[in-house]
Amino acid sequence: MTILHDDRLFPPDPETRSIARRLYGEVRNLPILSPHGHTNAQWFAEDTPFSDPTRLFIVPDHYVYRMLYSQGVPLTDLGVGADSEPDPRTIWRQFAKHYYLFRATPTRMWLDYAFQELFGMESRLSSENADKFYDVIAEKLQTPTFRPRALLERFRIEVLATTDSPLDTLLHHRAIRALNLKTRILPTFRPDPVVDPDFDLFHQNVRKLGELTSEDTGTWVGYLAALRQSRARFKEMGCTTTDHGHPTAATADLDETTTAALFRKVTSEKASSEEKELFRAQMLTEMARMSLDDGLVMQIHPGSFRNHNAALHQKFGRDVGADIPTRTDYVHHLHPLLNRFGNEGRLTVILFTLDESTYSRELAPLAGHYPCLRLGPPWWFHDSPEGMLRFREYTTETAGFYNTVGFNDDTRALLSIPGRHDTARRVDCGYLARLVADHRLDEDEAHEVARDLAYRLAQHAYKL
Amino acid sequence: MTILHDDRLFPPDPETRSIARRLYGEVRNLPILSPHGHTNAQWFAEDTPFSDPTRLFIVPDHYVYRMLYSQGVPLTDLGVGADSEPDPRTIWRQFAKHYYLFRATPTRMWLDYAFQELFGMESRLSSENADKFYDVIAEKLQTPTFRPRALLERFRIEVLATTDSPLDTLLHHRAIRALNLKTRILPTFRPDPVVDPDFDLFHQNVRKLGELTSEDTGTWVGYLAALRQSRARFKEMGCTTTDHGHPTAATADLDETTTAALFRKVTSEKASSEEKELFRAQMLTEMARMSLDDGLVMQIHPGSFRNHNAALHQKFGRDVGADIPTRTDYVHHLHPLLNRFGNEGRLTVILFTLDESTYSRELAPLAGHYPCLRLGPPWWFHDSPEGMLRFREYTTETAGFYNTVGFNDDTRALLSIPGRHDTARRVDCGYLARLVADHRLDEDEAHEVARDLAYRLAQHAYKL
Amino acid sequence: MTILHDDRLFPPDPETRSIARRLYGEVRNLPILSPHGHTNAQWFAEDTPFSDPTRLFIVPDHYVYRMLYSQGVPLTDLGVGADSEPDPRTIWRQFAKHYYLFRATPTRMWLDYAFQELFGMESRLSSENADKFYDVIAEKLQTPTFRPRALLERFRIEVLATTDSPLDTLLHHRAIRALNLKTRILPTFRPDPVVDPDFDLFHQNVRKLGELTSEDTGTWVGYLAALRQSRARFKEMGCTTTDHGHPTAATADLDETTTAALFRKVTSEKASSEEKELFRAQMLTEMARMSLDDGLVMQIHPGSFRNHNAALHQKFGRDVGADIPTRTDYVHHLHPLLNRFGNEGRLTVILFTLDESTYSRELAPLAGHYPCLRLGPPWWFHDSPEGMLRFREYTTETAGFYNTVGFNDDTRALLSIPGRHDTARRVDCGYLARLVADHRLDEDEAHEVARDLAYRLAQHAYKL
Repeated sequence: MTILHDDRLFPPDPETRSIARRLYGEVRNLPILSPHGHTNAQWFAEDTPFSDPTRLFIVPDHYVYRMLYSQGVPLTDLGVGADSEPDPRTIWRQFAKHYYLFRATPTRMWLDYAFQELFGMESRLSSENADKFYDVIAEKLQTPTFRPRALLERFRIEVLATTDSPLDTLLHHRAIRALNLKTRILPTFRPDPVVDPDFDLFHQNVRKLGELTSEDTGTWVGYLAALRQSRARFKEMGCTTTDHGHPTAATADLDETTTAALFRKVTSEKASSEEKELFRAQMLTEMARMSLDDGLVMQIHPGSFRNHNAALHQKFGRDVGADIPTRTDYVHHLHPLLNRFGNEGRLTVILFTLDESTYSRELAPLAGHYPCLRLGPPWWFHDSPEGMLRFREYTTETAGFYNTVGFNDDTRALLSIPGRHDTARRVDCGYLARLVADHRLDEDEAHEVARDLAYRLAQHAYKL
Repeated sequence: MTILHDDRLFPPDPETRSIARRLYGEVRNLPILSPHGHTNAQWFAEDTPFSDPTRLFIVPDHYVYRMLYSQGVPLTDLGVGADSEPDPRTIWRQFAKHYYLFRATPTRMWLDYAFQELFGMESRLSSENADKFYDVIAEKLQTPTFRPRALLERFRIEVLATTDSPLDTLLHHRAIRALNLKTRILPTFRPDPVVDPDFDLFHQNVRKLGELTSEDTGTWVGYLAALRQSRARFKEMGCTTTDHGHPTAATADLDETTTAALFRKVTSEKASSEEKELFRAQMLTEMARMSLDDGLVMQIHPGSFRNHNAALHQKFGRDVGADIPTRTDYVHHLHPLLNRFGNEGRLTVILFTLDESTYSRELAPLAGHYPCLRLGPPWWFHDSPEGMLRFREYTTETAGFYNTVGFNDDTRALLSIPGRHDTARRVDCGYLARLVADHRLDEDEAHEVARDLAYRLAQHAYKL
Repeated sequence: MTILHDDRLFPPDPETRSIARRLYGEVRNLPILSPHGHTNAQWFAEDTPFSDPTRLFIVPDHYVYRMLYSQGVPLTDLGVGADSEPDPRTIWRQFAKHYYLFRATPTRMWLDYAFQELFGMESRLSSENADKFYDVIAEKLQTPTFRPRALLERFRIEVLATTDSPLDTLLHHRAIRALNLKTRILPTFRPDPVVDPDFDLFHQNVRKLGELTSEDTGTWVGYLAALRQSRARFKEMGCTTTDHGHPTAATADLDETTTAALFRKVTSEKASSEEKELFRAQMLTEMARMSLDDGLVMQIHPGSFRNHNAALHQKFGRDVGADIPTRTDYVHHLHPLLNRFGNEGRLTVILFTLDESTYSRELAPLAGHYPCLRLGPPWWFHDSPEGMLRFREYTTETAGFYNTVGFNDDTRALLSIPGRHDTARRVDCGYLARLVADHRLDEDEAHEVARDLAYRLAQHAYKL
């Protein structure tokens, strides 16, 4: 008995399905490149076992608890928040009782994948078998083969990137490098805490950046020097990319005097929201300039209205499932940065979106022209079978396959990584199979593209 | 001979089609819940026969005559407008002659359904058989089985909601309650005429509301009391929901002093269009506050540019097929209301849209988080096979099935109700069949979901 | 051996595919109407052979070189730009080497069509066979059957429209008319150079217009008279349509005094960008007014951010693949024009879009109501199999088939015309086949619609 069918996500027409099977057969077992994600370097540095099924699957996963919350389950009943400490098994039972809510969601698919492939479960999670699931998983988590480093090897993860603040000492990354693991674990330079004036504790962060680097971050010149030095420190730990999570895609290209004045304004606590936005915009251009020097690949992840639910933000802090996508403008907003550096072949800027209406209207036309631009895979809410299929259907005809960069799992949940990559590989093979069945692509080409999407494009775009 | 094939709207792949057939087989004959619509309570209170095919199918249906008008048929030739009184049979012939214009539209599907299932016609309407259709339908309409109440029973309509102004005396609803019909016919509280300063005769409406309730609607306090009293009166007639058709999704959360001043402004005829918009925005939050007290479910239907065609509006009035959808922003616009009441489990707010680009970007992420939010079915122009399929494809992966509320027919045309629900059930079963065929959902689950979508979700969300 | 399969672009389900084959069988060989395009009248007036494969397929086609440029191939290496004059065979080899970039793009499909159908090639272009392709094509181009006029006949092109400035003398069109070709070659009146104040050399263009017409284009009255006279001159050469490529869909309906003052402003070089936009907006309404008089059909092509890449624009000029679509608003922007002339049955306005999110939200509802409006086919980046399918899926249910106008190839590349029309016919037949397989349309109706989409609708809408 299995939970998941081996033909899942393949097109139903028998001939198309058999093409999809052939394509998938050749990429199914390729190693995993995970160049953008949010796992914790400490796990691998210390290799401590995961504590229990609830803390592994529910408490850290905002995909899981946002759905339960939307249907009336209080977050405190799910172990979210500092004060809350309900019994893990009770939470697990709540989760199992509500498992039907996840029908036809990608979360359900990743969970089922982990239950079946990693823990050997043979039937769907339900109230009836909740305790059995809990016991089996809890027991296995204490065995050596379920320790973080063993999982990396089992998952055939060749590269795993974390996401890190310039204020992070990269202590765990340093420790990991000494271990000589088969998996290369790399930090990603995410400067939001020190370049976004709206970030929690921005002023304090900029001061700390100065202390860490021994630069005077009270001045524009010192601030830039501190950022440059931090990037160099990340590079030493193997970092190949930066990541930027701004509310919009706005960029600017101001002259130095104006920028220095703007910097004084935003660091003196008196800036308007327009000035803060302009500063973030200018900082994307500054980061691009630094990338031209040090070769780090830029990732831009715009368009999330963070902490939309003020009451929850106040009570539980960031990242509790209340970030909501907004309309995003790439054509006008990226114009200043592209006019400055868009024709630079040495620069790589990978664009992500939460606004699918931009795929065919803005992103594919931009990436199909500017040498520096590439399209990141479907992101966050759109990292799902239908979302992945739409991404291909809306971008391929204008940008082709070779202006995209393969798949990112973008996850905090280590155990979901193989399931997520498997979903992406299946959906891409299904899409390619349809092109072959429609005679838009020859099958020998589809085999090559399938490998490119599963492995080579990420390797090349992220300089892995 | 039949006009419609029994497998219509099912996916073409044979195996997927047979799954769809099995699913549909179990929901096909479920009773109909129609919790949002625009039929006329008077029909059921008085049970008068419908007069003729033209006045039944063409004159009241803006879907029908907007298409004919777009191809050059004058509205006056179709019986629209007070002055126009052409011969019903002549209009019917015009309609039949242009029936090809409706190819592949949902209107065509509802009409064919009614022609075949209710009137026993066996071939497609055309110029050749126009008179025969007219005669058969005209004759049947005069028989007892085609009276409004008989139709309700024949259609297995369990609940039918109308849409009513706070100025409506609900006389017909009162009469209906005395009849003890099998179908529960319920009013819906639609306060637009007294909360939207741009509504025709707004000032007069607010005064009338005062007279009806014996409250002083010249003051903010009296106005609120009058609204509360009206809602209570609707509840007595079985009403469970309110409905709000604002031009945008804007909400506000002003303090009482500011709101009272704004009320004075908009009721004194000197308000700017910004102030009118702000008043509407505030009134949504006021309505949510009242819903928390009296338990009425809120429906928000934003985003229609009403009466886009000024010449037609002047000549024929509202609702002549010239309302056009506009871009709608839910993320910023609903923020004030959600920050005030978004975490209230006792509140239900059902969101509709005319802007499909918001499905995956805004609506599914919002409904997949806030406990009070649910997604209404595809609305108006999008209440069609492709529109229904897109709704599922764009919302399910983020909001799941259980943050949606089943189907609404939203119609003025009594005879289209079974055909519309049948279309929705077929499309949903076809969608579920694809998920089963792709192995994204087990078939036993799909059966449960099919019943939920066809019946239970509406029953629960609308408190029926 | 063939490059392209005869069933390409048909749905994979065997029964649906066989319906598609039957539909396509009847439209495959219909003559081609090409009422909107960018070929060069001089080719047909002079009938000079095309020089070489590179100048035929690569140098003039921004679809081709934008993709190569996006992957790092310098434009100068592709023969773009006045200074660049690399060896045509070297460019061809570059192109062949990068042919994999075009996988699953419409460009690849048109190229393969031309290679196979016109030049008899039997395998996919690659580095290995690049020279063979070059030699075969180069040789054939020198034969009489590959001269421009012979190709028109071979392609069964019944009507071919070019696009022309009011400043064009139409010398070549005059010469062509004397030839009495089987193909009717017609100019299109594209007044952008003299109505868009942001157009290169606008002021000089307006002066030239005065000289050409002997009207005083320094005055509003003279300017209008000059435009009217130019339109008349185009009509004499067979012109039936105008075309308007504004950055937005904005229209205005100002009184004459205001317009005359605005005209003085924009022609005196001191206008703000808002005033320039308002002038363009007003000019669309002026053009509609003239169309009511002279019967020319209007085409509006809004929403392109032209010359987004400033450095390339400066170096190479317009039309080098750096025009990017933007969000477009039709509902508010067309309101003034529609309020003035929207109910005129004698006026035809064909709307195009680069913003697919407007298909179901704005364009289909507008065209399904206003008698003057029709929807142009998917345009530019969206003129592709997936784009064409989306166009039908998003517009048909609200606007029907009969508010659309068939296919436009919109191309500069003469040799791509049959391939483009073939793609459109296949995709439309595939779409219709799906409707038949789903029992949404009867097969006899689908046959009629297929012919309408392939031929009759264009003939009627463009008055050919």
